[in-house]
Amino acid sequence: MNENSSNTMALTSNTSNKRETVCIFGTGDFGRALGHKMIQCGYPVVYGSRSTQISNLIPKDAEVLSHAEAAQKAAIIIIAIQRQHYNFLTTLAEILHGKVVVDISNNLKLNQYPESNAEYLAQLLPGAKVVKAFNTVSAWALQSGTLDASRQVFVCGDDMEAKQMVMNIVRALGLTPLDQGSLLAAQGIENYPLQLFPMWKFPIFLSFGLAVFFFFYCLALNVIYTYIYQKQDFSFFIAISIPNQVCPVMALVLLAVVYLPGVLAAIIQLYRGTKYRRFPDWLDKWMLCRKQLGLIALAFASLHVLFTLVGPIRSFVRWRTSQGIISQALNNKTEPLDNTNAWLSDSYLALGILGFFLFVLLGITSLPSVSNNVNWREFRFVQSKLGYLTLILCTAHTMVYGGKWFLNPLAYKWYLPDIYMLSLVVPCTVLVIKFVLIFPCVDKPLTQIRQGWERTPKYSE
Amino acid sequence: MNENSSNTMALTSNTSNKRETVCIFGTGDFGRALGHKMIQCGYPVVYGSRSTQISNLIPKDAEVLSHAEAAQKAAIIIIAIQRQHYNFLTTLAEILHGKVVVDISNNLKLNQYPESNAEYLAQLLPGAKVVKAFNTVSAWALQSGTLDASRQVFVCGDDMEAKQMVMNIVRALGLTPLDQGSLLAAQGIENYPLQLFPMWKFPIFLSFGLAVFFFFYCLALNVIYTYIYQKQDFSFFIAISIPNQVCPVMALVLLAVVYLPGVLAAIIQLYRGTKYRRFPDWLDKWMLCRKQLGLIALAFASLHVLFTLVGPIRSFVRWRTSQGIISQALNNKTEPLDNTNAWLSDSYLALGILGFFLFVLLGITSLPSVSNNVNWREFRFVQSKLGYLTLILCTAHTMVYGGKWFLNPLAYKWYLPDIYMLSLVVPCTVLVIKFVLIFPCVDKPLTQIRQGWERTPKYSE
Amino acid sequence: MNENSSNTMALTSNTSNKRETVCIFGTGDFGRALGHKMIQCGYPVVYGSRSTQISNLIPKDAEVLSHAEAAQKAAIIIIAIQRQHYNFLTTLAEILHGKVVVDISNNLKLNQYPESNAEYLAQLLPGAKVVKAFNTVSAWALQSGTLDASRQVFVCGDDMEAKQMVMNIVRALGLTPLDQGSLLAAQGIENYPLQLFPMWKFPIFLSFGLAVFFFFYCLALNVIYTYIYQKQDFSFFIAISIPNQVCPVMALVLLAVVYLPGVLAAIIQLYRGTKYRRFPDWLDKWMLCRKQLGLIALAFASLHVLFTLVGPIRSFVRWRTSQGIISQALNNKTEPLDNTNAWLSDSYLALGILGFFLFVLLGITSLPSVSNNVNWREFRFVQSKLGYLTLILCTAHTMVYGGKWFLNPLAYKWYLPDIYMLSLVVPCTVLVIKFVLIFPCVDKPLTQIRQGWERTPKYSE
Repeated sequence: MNENSSNTMALTSNTSNKRETVCIFGTGDFGRALGHKMIQCGYPVVYGSRSTQISNLIPKDAEVLSHAEAAQKAAIIIIAIQRQHYNFLTTLAEILHGKVVVDISNNLKLNQYPESNAEYLAQLLPGAKVVKAFNTVSAWALQSGTLDASRQVFVCGDDMEAKQMVMNIVRALGLTPLDQGSLLAAQGIENYPLQLFPMWKFPIFLSFGLAVFFFFYCLALNVIYTYIYQKQDFSFFIAISIPNQVCPVMALVLLAVVYLPGVLAAIIQLYRGTKYRRFPDWLDKWMLCRKQLGLIALAFASLHVLFTLVGPIRSFVRWRTSQGIISQALNNKTEPLDNTNAWLSDSYLALGILGFFLFVLLGITSLPSVSNNVNWREFRFVQSKLGYLTLILCTAHTMVYGGKWFLNPLAYKWYLPDIYMLSLVVPCTVLVIKFVLIFPCVDKPLTQIRQGWERTPKYSE
Repeated sequence: MNENSSNTMALTSNTSNKRETVCIFGTGDFGRALGHKMIQCGYPVVYGSRSTQISNLIPKDAEVLSHAEAAQKAAIIIIAIQRQHYNFLTTLAEILHGKVVVDISNNLKLNQYPESNAEYLAQLLPGAKVVKAFNTVSAWALQSGTLDASRQVFVCGDDMEAKQMVMNIVRALGLTPLDQGSLLAAQGIENYPLQLFPMWKFPIFLSFGLAVFFFFYCLALNVIYTYIYQKQDFSFFIAISIPNQVCPVMALVLLAVVYLPGVLAAIIQLYRGTKYRRFPDWLDKWMLCRKQLGLIALAFASLHVLFTLVGPIRSFVRWRTSQGIISQALNNKTEPLDNTNAWLSDSYLALGILGFFLFVLLGITSLPSVSNNVNWREFRFVQSKLGYLTLILCTAHTMVYGGKWFLNPLAYKWYLPDIYMLSLVVPCTVLVIKFVLIFPCVDKPLTQIRQGWERTPKYSE
Repeated sequence: MNENSSNTMALTSNTSNKRETVCIFGTGDFGRALGHKMIQCGYPVVYGSRSTQISNLIPKDAEVLSHAEAAQKAAIIIIAIQRQHYNFLTTLAEILHGKVVVDISNNLKLNQYPESNAEYLAQLLPGAKVVKAFNTVSAWALQSGTLDASRQVFVCGDDMEAKQMVMNIVRALGLTPLDQGSLLAAQGIENYPLQLFPMWKFPIFLSFGLAVFFFFYCLALNVIYTYIYQKQDFSFFIAISIPNQVCPVMALVLLAVVYLPGVLAAIIQLYRGTKYRRFPDWLDKWMLCRKQLGLIALAFASLHVLFTLVGPIRSFVRWRTSQGIISQALNNKTEPLDNTNAWLSDSYLALGILGFFLFVLLGITSLPSVSNNVNWREFRFVQSKLGYLTLILCTAHTMVYGGKWFLNPLAYKWYLPDIYMLSLVVPCTVLVIKFVLIFPCVDKPLTQIRQGWERTPKYSE
């Protein structure tokens, strides 16, 4: 059920006494939070603890017994204890035999132990049906009911029935269980909550570095140069003008960087004549973060659009416009419409709009719920065909914008090219290589290699 | 499978005779619609009815028999009868023994009966395997094939195998079954289709009320005041100028209202010294609708962006601009560039753009498919860190926009402050409290309380 | 688990030897790719092949044996052979008895054979537990690890346990299994990867055709007419001005086309007096692609917004503006503010902004992850109530924009109406019919028909 309804249901849940008793070993934070929530949802809860004279933090309606007594009262025992203290459970092996034992522990580091905590528990208690669950849920969120974030609870275990029992509890708490298969999946489930956007790190560092470089490059050419040679203080360019030069350049370069590994991979495969050798590690990693690079490129493109559209509202632009008009009026002359200028201006704007539009389309199709609804053929069509069209349109947008300035010596302050010229290097390289790769004489062997046929004896087994 | 393909599959489904026979009790609207659809998908359907001389509305290929005869022909019996008439089923208890009985009924009100219809049915027929399903699907949608909306069918029941059989039928009809666990979930499933955005009600009423207040406040200061004291008719401000004052104010206030309960909760926890007492009800509910408040704030922010960007196209703005330029030209003077103005103008625009950009990012991460793909740590990072950054940027945007007017007596018409000054009250309060809360001397005890350690004897069980 | 984490997990997966051995029949491309990936994820793999002296393309750690020997070593046999060669498997029927046999084959055409490959395989091997899986995954994606696209693997089969075993393997490879029910679903699963946006074809052709027509219509009236009669070269209108006339017209017409079949269906039902007869085929198909039509309309609306907002940046517009101001300045006269003009200008902009805003809202709710989270009542509310409000706002936007031109003969070049007048035909028709339909005397019988009551004897069974 969706988040909203779950919220409502949690608020109105009937605390019927039909639910089976659940035993929780451990009265630490997460044990208490889970007990609270379960009692709220109608489960009788019994705590197993070393000392039964426990503090008043234990939920009121819960019983506190010794471990052995508590375990005997329930078919499901939740182990809310840290891994280091699992040993003592061996003394309870007999009582826990045949029962569902739920491991909810987390580690402090990725792959901290050779085997997952759940597998370790299963080794200690060979007779118990160990299920891994709940470790991805925050105690604080359970407590406060603010489960805005992921309501997904990854569940794994070797016993189907035990897993079903745990998944029913998960659902009753208003969460969504996700069956992850056998207990071998526990390692991955235990690593999951420790991550902080692992696939985003490299793309973000790369784009941050590039953006800083381009920012200072523009600062030098547009503010410092002007200040030195023309004695004009355009320091306020830092707020909008320079970001609006950096953003489109970043968007274009990063978009090209998304498609670069694809053409590199094609070259490597053509050279090797097989697809059955792994790519170099850097290329593998690069290919795995193309989606993230593309989304960052889209973010820069969106900023570029906003920065461009506020143009006419800017105090500086309005001042410049009125100065132009006033000087024409005072000189009593009216300029005729420059048709070439109108063409150039309108076409680079139109190219930019279409490019941005397709870019947003690419971004939307990379939303998980959308990309899950297209098959492989459709995804390739969108990401490859539309993707290259976007790259072509954006490159053309930059070229037409640059237009007549490419050969004009005035554009080269301090003998340095303007930033949009720099930005064209990578996209043009990608487009030229791609153009070569779609020639039939190159495309045919490549397709064969990718179908795995090439050097294989062609019998169908 | 995705919606599209399901549509196609439904159209091309092979009406093979391999499907098991399904019996439907009741020839009302939903019974007929379901029967139609099932026959279309290849299921032999037999209706159980009191009168076997039934109207021609029954699908042609379906048999109509007495209840007992019909039930004997099938392993699955769908009960398309209203709850009030369930009693008569007890006479069929023997025939229904061991069969899968599917409850598809809905109620007219939330929690109309003490127990759910499905549980009531299970009590009447203790020998049958009762499964709840199909109640969230509309008969009209089934009939017309226009299943654009949710294709999800919530299924619950105590017997795994019976549930699997029903889920296979659901899938065969081109719908997506969602296992909701045991029959205890039936209450929630029966309440689900009766809701109309329950979590959105309070946020929408709140923002509507606030928006109306701010609208008339602006109307008084900008149209009526001007009309009375300056004899100018600016009534057309109602269309764009005033909405463009109300929208940013609403966005900023609502965004602050999203983060206010968080700091209030922290204060309450610090005061109480524990997290194991429930918050007051109003705070609980407030926290549960933060996501909705945030999305409404984003909607206002988006409108503000659009209203601002169309500025230069407005007839009034173009007239005002040209008047300014003409008067300069006629006076034969050219104003020099005001550097401070350029800085102020560019920086409030840049702050606004960045704030809006982060706001949209927050909105995207609150899409279910995106938030399901991040773990708790990542969600907290985005919603808390990025959220506060957004609030800071938007508050700064408003402050720089106000700029020099704060201390100017001309800004206070009728001794009332301008609306953007009012809008700063809540966000500044939140930011100041938050600033205090991140001081180590306050943050440390709070973190301890939230980890549940504080007043607990620190033994690890 | 989400895509990112799966990526990471795939990279760091522990190649423990706890996984069960998997046998693959066939050493073609997909068989090898799957074997590679499985070995990487810790599965011992043994190939069954006619010739055991196989090329060096087979993964190094895999064994190659005869079919019979290989099958004996594993409980799961993956058949990576084309359907034409399935016959020889009958000779292995005894060895495969009771084993899980996975069909991964795809066809070249939709519904190529009367029964699905998996069902054919099940007929050949009645003793084996046949499961359909993996056919939607691309060998190339498996090989290169670039599983950005759908990670969903549709699985179906008649044996629950066999299906679970296969789903565990799917999960271990970092993919998401989706249970599609019994083997009858295999036909749909085999057709799935062959589709290329089947539901989008008609909407895209329709809108492409319409857009081309409107483009040339505008070209004639705005460029060619001006060139002939006013000798002015406005050819650069092709880049922005004409697209910005075509886009809003397309958006409005397509939006109306989304709501047209709904009112047509109502008329047909009123005429027939029943909802239990199928609509004509064309209406059925039309209703099934309303979502796609609506999204294309939204795309055109977004382009219209962008084209409009870049207006003030266009070289032509800036030239026209400055000419207007200069001529006023030179004539030494200042125009007073035209209040009617200001009202018209501001209201058509405000209507357009609100209409676009609601349109985007409709688009967001049609995202699968959002529409899955609303119930039928909520979906109807959004798509019907908000949808009609959007249509009304957009129609009003166009009407106010047209404003005083409707009756002006200057607006009819070559006696042809301007394009925005044409665009009003369909939306106004829809709105008028809808207006009639909500009259109580029409609405009441319609509601009764849709509830299926009308001509049915009213006894509740």
